[in-house]
Order: sequence, then structure tokens, then C-alpha cells
Amino acid sequence: MRPQRYLLSITLSLVASVALLQVAMAQNDPLPSWNNTGAKTAVIKFVDRVTAKDSADFVAAEERIAVFDNDGTLWSEQPVYFQGLFALDRVRAMAPKHPEWKTTEPFKSVIAGDMKGLMATGKQGLAKVIAASHANMTAEEFADSVARWLETARHPTTGKRYDEMVFQPMLELLDYLRANDFKTFLVSGGGIDFMRVFAERVYGVPPEQVVGSEIDATFEMRDGIPTIVKVPKLVLVDDKAGKPIGIYRHIGRRPLVAGGNSDGDLQMLQYTTIARNASDTTPRFGLIVHHTDAEREFAYDRDSHMGRLDAALDEAGKRGWLVVDMKNDWKTIYPDSSH
Amino acid sequence: MRPQRYLLSITLSLVASVALLQVAMAQNDPLPSWNNTGAKTAVIKFVDRVTAKDSADFVAAEERIAVFDNDGTLWSEQPVYFQGLFALDRVRAMAPKHPEWKTTEPFKSVIAGDMKGLMATGKQGLAKVIAASHANMTAEEFADSVARWLETARHPTTGKRYDEMVFQPMLELLDYLRANDFKTFLVSGGGIDFMRVFAERVYGVPPEQVVGSEIDATFEMRDGIPTIVKVPKLVLVDDKAGKPIGIYRHIGRRPLVAGGNSDGDLQMLQYTTIARNASDTTPRFGLIVHHTDAEREFAYDRDSHMGRLDAALDEAGKRGWLVVDMKNDWKTIYPDSSH
Repeated sequence: MRPQRYLLSITLSLVASVALLQVAMAQNDPLPSWNNTGAKTAVIKFVDRVTAKDSADFVAAEERIAVFDNDGTLWSEQPVYFQGLFALDRVRAMAPKHPEWKTTEPFKSVIAGDMKGLMATGKQGLAKVIAASHANMTAEEFADSVARWLETARHPTTGKRYDEMVFQPMLELLDYLRANDFKTFLVSGGGIDFMRVFAERVYGVPPEQVVGSEIDATFEMRDGIPTIVKVPKLVLVDDKAGKPIGIYRHIGRRPLVAGGNSDGDLQMLQYTTIARNASDTTPRFGLIVHHTDAEREFAYDRDSHMGRLDAALDEAGKRGWLVVDMKNDWKTIYPDSSH
Repeated sequence: MRPQRYLLSITLSLVASVALLQVAMAQNDPLPSWNNTGAKTAVIKFVDRVTAKDSADFVAAEERIAVFDNDGTLWSEQPVYFQGLFALDRVRAMAPKHPEWKTTEPFKSVIAGDMKGLMATGKQGLAKVIAASHANMTAEEFADSVARWLETARHPTTGKRYDEMVFQPMLELLDYLRANDFKTFLVSGGGIDFMRVFAERVYGVPPEQVVGSEIDATFEMRDGIPTIVKVPKLVLVDDKAGKPIGIYRHIGRRPLVAGGNSDGDLQMLQYTTIARNASDTTPRFGLIVHHTDAEREFAYDRDSHMGRLDAALDEAGKRGWLVVDMKNDWKTIYPDSSH
């Protein structure tokens, strides 16, 4: 072989090797939609630290509990929490059967699409909208209404299905944690049985691992069929201080990982990560999704009505919580839609 | 080889084969503490029917939810629910710090061991005993008090630790179901955080799969430590009609298997097994532990104050629920104690 051809051959095989290595690394990359920034490194480092058999900080699989907020953490929440949009759509869909709503607030405003009018009805008005769309029906009827809405409703600015507006990097994070024997839970201010309709299909989180706000229910036999009926009485507001309580009630152990995006997640992040005493040295991981990407998603934090992130952002540095910068840390936002 | 030797050789190898076969069968027997009666056959037949890949009634693993009552189903409940005995013991242990209890009912009667006096204080008296032993303390303090009690308390007639009075055949059933990709849950009238102290160690059921009666809780920062405090206000009585509601709240899907032992389990058995409509043909399994063994455990049903089994026993035949006869269907009751 002539020297030139020899050099060329070496060069080509080097190029081929690097290319193969890149493919291999991409295949082994558990978080391909995350840019190679510090955020991704921090996540992987933590998971290695608590799962490597020879790690001083090894945590048994049964204690690997990871909890995630939903609105703004796993899917978008602008311009209004999606469940709120569902409630408005439901009222409109039910209106033909309730002619009295045309002249009664808050329904009158909802039917007219008059959001200012609705807001003027205050908390009591909103509670009536929630009750009409979420209660006095069987559990199955409610689940069916959510499923039908997801099929047909489209987001006002993106035109996407609401369950397409989930964050691809977070889907990968959930998968990555589960591949490392974490049990992943939703712990969200959203309704528990609203989320259960799509959590398994979209997030891989089964119904029994969904924690959310709850209204009461009754059990009765209807024509010989055991039936759960939803009752318009709040049992748990799974937001702020309600989140550690939701975790306590439903999970019964302190999480190892918590992810949120707003001040509604502050107490969950505190409960998860703050050491209880001097001997509590287990590393724990807090993560905040910071909405910094006005172009690909939305940009908001301290002044937002939905998902205000203020106190938790201040506390993140002190507590060592990872603040994920959506614009810089994420390669993509939503999954490729193929519906 | 001479004919006699030949015959002898055949006989010996036959004997050896049968012996080996018996060993192999015992090793493969998932329920060794169950006698070979119809009960055992029914359980195994059902599990095969819903898990065999080629079965017309195959059920996907994620839908294999099995729920079990605790008191009287997984452990004994005589002469009084064990959690009641815990509450009395706790009041006595706390009494030195509450000198006023010596002259105040219901505590006076509890301290004096006067059960008639305690009963005379009625529901309000019992609620005070429960509140004193279960609330106004942190979640950790409560769990510690249960763990300490389990270590030291002994059952009045058997002298055993309470967590040794679990039913070996039911432990095997839980294991067998899990080996077939069932998720096993407790759904009991007992307190959720009382059971969580021992459910994982004793039953292999993790805290997040324990459903029980719940009192409320608050979240607060105490000296900078996130703290859950138990509050004496009932949130869920997980008994009778409360059981399907507990299942709905905590699990969010209808079980495939339900096991109980009393009328408190009737609605859970109905909810689990009654077909919802003509197209609901999934086979489901209801099981009732019938306490028929006065010698090895206790014998009681229709007239018992604890764990009365009356309406559910009447309905068992009609619904096709398996009624397990402890005396005849179980080889052993409690595990070999080696503490």
C-alpha cells in the first residue's frame, strides 16, 4: 500500500469510528432531547449516584419514588390550565340540556365565551363550573367525557391535541427513571381522575400512581350495578401544602426525586429534598422546569397568573434544586406529532 | 439380567420417579399450605385462566389488580381488632404524661382495664381513644409508636407477636399472585398508616399499595423541617361502601381479585366481581376467608361482633365467590414462628 493510500485508509477508518461512536452514544443517550448542558449532566449524575451498586449513596429500588407535577411540568399550562378549558367546553356541550343556563351565571358567561364575565362570578362561579363538568355523574361518565374531549379539542394557539403538548424531554426523563427502577408518580393540582384518563397512555404512569386534587364520591347499586358517583365536595386540593399531604396519603414514603415548575410545587420540593436530621444523608433531587422559551412554548415566571414561579425560584439556589432552562437545555419541546 | 432383578429394577426406578415427581410437584406448588381441596384448585384455575397467553380470558398485566382486606383476611382479628388493642396500650403508655386521665373518661376506664366502662362511653369515648393514640403527633412519631408496639406487645391468648398472627396460606396467595404479575393492595378498614408500618415487611405490600381508613393531616415547617402532622378528623372510613371508594381514590381501576372475610368487604366484593354490562365478560375472582377453626384460630361468622360475616356469606353462592373453609382448606394457619 502506498503511504498516501495508507493515510487515507487510516483517516477513513477514524472518521467511520467517530461516526459509529456518535451513533452508539446517541443510542445509549437516555435523554436525547436534552442538550448536552449542565442540566442533563446533573440528572444523569444523580441517577448514577443512587443506583450504582457500588455507590456510597446507593438507594434500594423500593425507595426510588419520583413525583412530578403535571401542569407546566409535564405538559403546557398556557393560556389557561387545560382542565379549565375542558370544564368550559363541557359546560358548552351540556348547555342544550340546561336551557336555564342561558340566563344564569356563571353559565351564561361561559356559553357566551365571556371570560371577563366568568371571572366576575368569582370563586363561587368557578366552583359551579367545576361542579357541573366534574360531579353528579358516574366515574365512567366523567372518564368518557374527558376521553372524548381529548379526541376532539385543539389548543387555541398551537392547534395541537392537548395530549400532544407534553414535553418530550420530560417523557424521556420519566422513561429513564423507570429504566433505573424508579416508580414514577404524578402529584398535581389537577384532578386525579382527569389525569388518570391519559396518564398511562401518554406518560406511562398507571392510574394507581396518579395523585391529584380529589372531590368526594359515593358508592351505590344502580339497577344491580355497583356504581361510583362523583360528588361536588372537595376532599383534597393537591397544591402547595396539599402536595406533601397527597404524597403522604397516597404514597406513604418520602420521594427521592421531585419535579415541578411553580410555587404550587414549593412544599413538595421542600418535603422531598430537605434533610430531616443530621443522619439523613440520602441525596435527593429537586427539579424546576423554567418556562423560558417564548418561541417554542411560552415564557413566564414571577408575574404569571398560571404557574407563577417566584418563591420556589428564589429557594432553588439555596436548596440546590436544578432549574431547567427550557430554551437552552431542551433540544425539542413537544414530541413529533403523528396523529 | 434375571427376570426378578429386572422387575425389581423397574419397581425401584418407578418408586424413585414417583418420589421425584412428588418433590417436583411440591417445589412447583405455589400454595403449599393449602390442602388439595377445591379452594386451591379454584384459585390456581382462575390465575391460569387470566394469565395464560393463549387463554381467551387473558388479562394484560397492568390490569391485574388484587385487593385484600387485612383484619380477619390476612391476620387474625379476635378478641378485638389489633389496632384497637394498640390504641388501648398507647393510652396506657401515655398516661403518666396525662395525670388528668385518671379521673376523665374514657381514659379512666382504659387505664383501669375496665372494658365495660370504656364501652359505656360509646362512640364518642372510642373516638377520644383513637384521637389520643393516633393524632396530634407527626407521621414519624405515629409510625415509631406502632413499630415499638409490634416489637413488645403480645396477643392475649396465643402469646404471639401480632405480626406473627398472619395467615401463611394468604402470604402464599399474595406471593403467587405477584409471581403472576398481579399488583397486590391492602384495602382495609384499618388505619392506612398503621398498616404501612408492617405491610411491606410482613406482606410484601409497599406503602403506596396500602389503602385504609384515613384521618386528615397538615403540612408545616417545624424548625425548618417539613413535617406532616396527623389531625383527628376522619377523611375516609375504608369499610363497607367506603371500600370501593378507597379503591377508586387510590387505585383508579376495578380490581380483578378481591379477598375479604366479613360484611365490611361485601361492597368491595360486589364492585370487583359484578359485570357492569353485557360486554363485560372478564372473569373476576371474589374470595371470602371463613373462620371455621376454633382449635387453630377462631370460629365465628354471623353473630360475631368483630368481623361479622352474614350478608356476604349469603351472597357468596349467588355471585360465585370462593368461601375458604380455614379448617378444611388450610394445612397451617400461622407461619412457623422463629422470632
